[in-house]
Amino acid sequence: MSLPQTIPTGDPAAAALPSGRTSDPTVASLLQDISTIGTDTFRGGYSRPVFSTAETDLRGWFVEQAGRRGLDVHTDQNGIIWAWWDTAARTRKDAVVTGSHLDSVPGGGGYDGPLGVASALIAVDLLKARGLRPRRPLAIAVFPEEEGSRFGVACLGSRLLTGSLDPDKARRLKDPDGNTYADVAAANGQDPRLIGADYATLQQLGVFVELHVEQGRGLADLDQPVAIGSSILGHGRWKLSISGQGNHAGTTLMRDRRDPMVAAAKIMVSIRDTARKYRDARATVGRVQPVPGGTNVIASRVDLWIDARHPDDSVTAALVEAIGLNAQVFAAEEGCTAAMTMESLSPTVHFDGGLRSRLQELLPAAPVLATGAGHDAGVLGPHLPTAMIFVRNPTGISHSPEELVEDWDAEAGALALADSLAGLAGDTRAPR
Amino acid sequence: MSLPQTIPTGDPAAAALPSGRTSDPTVASLLQDISTIGTDTFRGGYSRPVFSTAETDLRGWFVEQAGRRGLDVHTDQNGIIWAWWDTAARTRKDAVVTGSHLDSVPGGGGYDGPLGVASALIAVDLLKARGLRPRRPLAIAVFPEEEGSRFGVACLGSRLLTGSLDPDKARRLKDPDGNTYADVAAANGQDPRLIGADYATLQQLGVFVELHVEQGRGLADLDQPVAIGSSILGHGRWKLSISGQGNHAGTTLMRDRRDPMVAAAKIMVSIRDTARKYRDARATVGRVQPVPGGTNVIASRVDLWIDARHPDDSVTAALVEAIGLNAQVFAAEEGCTAAMTMESLSPTVHFDGGLRSRLQELLPAAPVLATGAGHDAGVLGPHLPTAMIFVRNPTGISHSPEELVEDWDAEAGALALADSLAGLAGDTRAPR
Repeated sequence: MSLPQTIPTGDPAAAALPSGRTSDPTVASLLQDISTIGTDTFRGGYSRPVFSTAETDLRGWFVEQAGRRGLDVHTDQNGIIWAWWDTAARTRKDAVVTGSHLDSVPGGGGYDGPLGVASALIAVDLLKARGLRPRRPLAIAVFPEEEGSRFGVACLGSRLLTGSLDPDKARRLKDPDGNTYADVAAANGQDPRLIGADYATLQQLGVFVELHVEQGRGLADLDQPVAIGSSILGHGRWKLSISGQGNHAGTTLMRDRRDPMVAAAKIMVSIRDTARKYRDARATVGRVQPVPGGTNVIASRVDLWIDARHPDDSVTAALVEAIGLNAQVFAAEEGCTAAMTMESLSPTVHFDGGLRSRLQELLPAAPVLATGAGHDAGVLGPHLPTAMIFVRNPTGISHSPEELVEDWDAEAGALALADSLAGLAGDTRAPR
Repeated sequence: MSLPQTIPTGDPAAAALPSGRTSDPTVASLLQDISTIGTDTFRGGYSRPVFSTAETDLRGWFVEQAGRRGLDVHTDQNGIIWAWWDTAARTRKDAVVTGSHLDSVPGGGGYDGPLGVASALIAVDLLKARGLRPRRPLAIAVFPEEEGSRFGVACLGSRLLTGSLDPDKARRLKDPDGNTYADVAAANGQDPRLIGADYATLQQLGVFVELHVEQGRGLADLDQPVAIGSSILGHGRWKLSISGQGNHAGTTLMRDRRDPMVAAAKIMVSIRDTARKYRDARATVGRVQPVPGGTNVIASRVDLWIDARHPDDSVTAALVEAIGLNAQVFAAEEGCTAAMTMESLSPTVHFDGGLRSRLQELLPAAPVLATGAGHDAGVLGPHLPTAMIFVRNPTGISHSPEELVEDWDAEAGALALADSLAGLAGDTRAPR
């Protein structure tokens, strides 16, 4: 793995990089190590849902890598892995924390989550190579179920940590096979009775900086490898159930039907058309489930899930209200009924202004970009200053096997993260 | 279980019915015996796919019931159960055969299939009570995977028997979990190397009469309990795959999308609208599968299955061609592509005219009706004279938990079947 040519040779960090020695790990080599875990031959890419063998293997890999770097690793009651680089005083407060997640959407790419975790490990390597003695403790955190692709609630780990999700509700969440979060967690050695708000841990954290692949083309258009995040678009998930009359596909005349699939189809087109009317809005149906789902059966019910997002939370609310009203009309046209329930809602998060200004001092070339994707940094935002660093994605494609980060951009990201952590943590060798 | 008041008391068969003794089985009591097998608490109704515990239990129940009636039961190499009421000569040729199936669609009703099997058992009871000594051998057949709801090919058992399905193709068929028919059959004690055309058995069969719940409102509108079938609507299944660009639901602007779900939705509305343009045509999408299927993911591909039927096979072909052309256009509108493949096609079957005339003599009050549903009687049709008897369905709803047959209509159906079998088989006590 050769170093990016774009790193200025005058950069004091460049000398400390493992440039010549091929045995030294890089972000790309770490990602290569885990490239066979959780591959999905049906969808392409990776399927690494929380508590799957793939995700458990990835967690084991992280624990091993963190231990190899001398970090003090433990998994807390909410399933979050913490890897501490303690200061001499071993005081765990006002910590500078980075990290991301290892779970994926079904058929996702290899960078969404793992890039932030691998970059955190390499940033520690870079800082150790520089001989940094941090004034503030440093830690890497790995959050479970960030995608919500198994139990339906995104950022489940950070929501439990911060108390923004009722542990009773979390315990009752079900995966597509009907297993509860409580049962699956227990089967994986976690005591589901102990999940929930963890203020003792929260009080140890000073700032959280999450590095993530950009899920858009902002950096590609600006021809820059890394950016600083400004905000996370407000977003929510709604379930729409359309009920009609199940019947035989061969014997039921077209005029006698109350087919919820036809109503659902009209509604799905309408959702897209409605979203187009609101500038900057996004609305997506990526999951739909007819019941009973037989080829020769007119469905009795169709469930579909709507992902809706807008920077202005009041516009998200208006968009979803319009979608719901249209759904009633299209369902009625087909003799069906529609019922919509909210599954989750996260308002727009503006990252801490002071922390962002500090990162802009440390990374002067980095542009500032908003993101449409949810992240644990958004959930932690109300509790401590948080920030994000995005790494260039040449096509902007994410949540897909085609998601990509070039190797040199990945190393540039880790370098930017190392510079940020060093600047935030301080160095006991330097005057304050 | 009381007897239907509508059976004329002058009917010679009525005296032989188990009217007073509550311990005598009836169609309703047999169906009651199996009413807890394979119930589906998620979809409602019954899910009894071939080789499931439910379907295996039902087969065991049938074997036990047939044995209790002194029938000679065996399961052939294609998984078809035969229960023989042999004549004194024990010659198994020119047999009069009835029967149906025990598997169901997902979330189906309790009558589609089991009504024909239970009625066959009760018809044997009625004929034995009358002291019938049949000239021709009688048999009950139970066909596996009539619905095609596990391996995708409807009437799999009768297609194998008649050689209309290549056994190699059958062995490679996969269920939704990816298990092949060969593996599942072997795990259930059937040797998959032996499946395929069975002319020795076919040569034993003289006629086949299948009793089935009507899957429409023809009898309800005519206020009659039973009808004689005239034809089975030609039908086929096509799979349509719409490919677009998978991406992140939050970060991808609406204008940058190539979302196959929106294309699929337009196509599903178009399929319904196209079918409406062809008189007597039916086209249904009951199954749709987005890939990868995550809530926060724009799908990269959507697969959907089309069930299309028309009495005139050339119209079915024209309908499907029109659907395919429209699909191309709607896919292109969304920057997607569409590819359609045929999974199965069954031409319209007109039941044997001579056998139908004979049944009309035996059941003079019964109207003659066509059906839109496929049946094993249709697959057997090219090989021997076949016929169907339909029993009233008050709402016409089928393939749904709401499918219904009133108890008195069920008993009237068994009586009509007994009269038909007796008339076709002849009685050695009576002059020919």
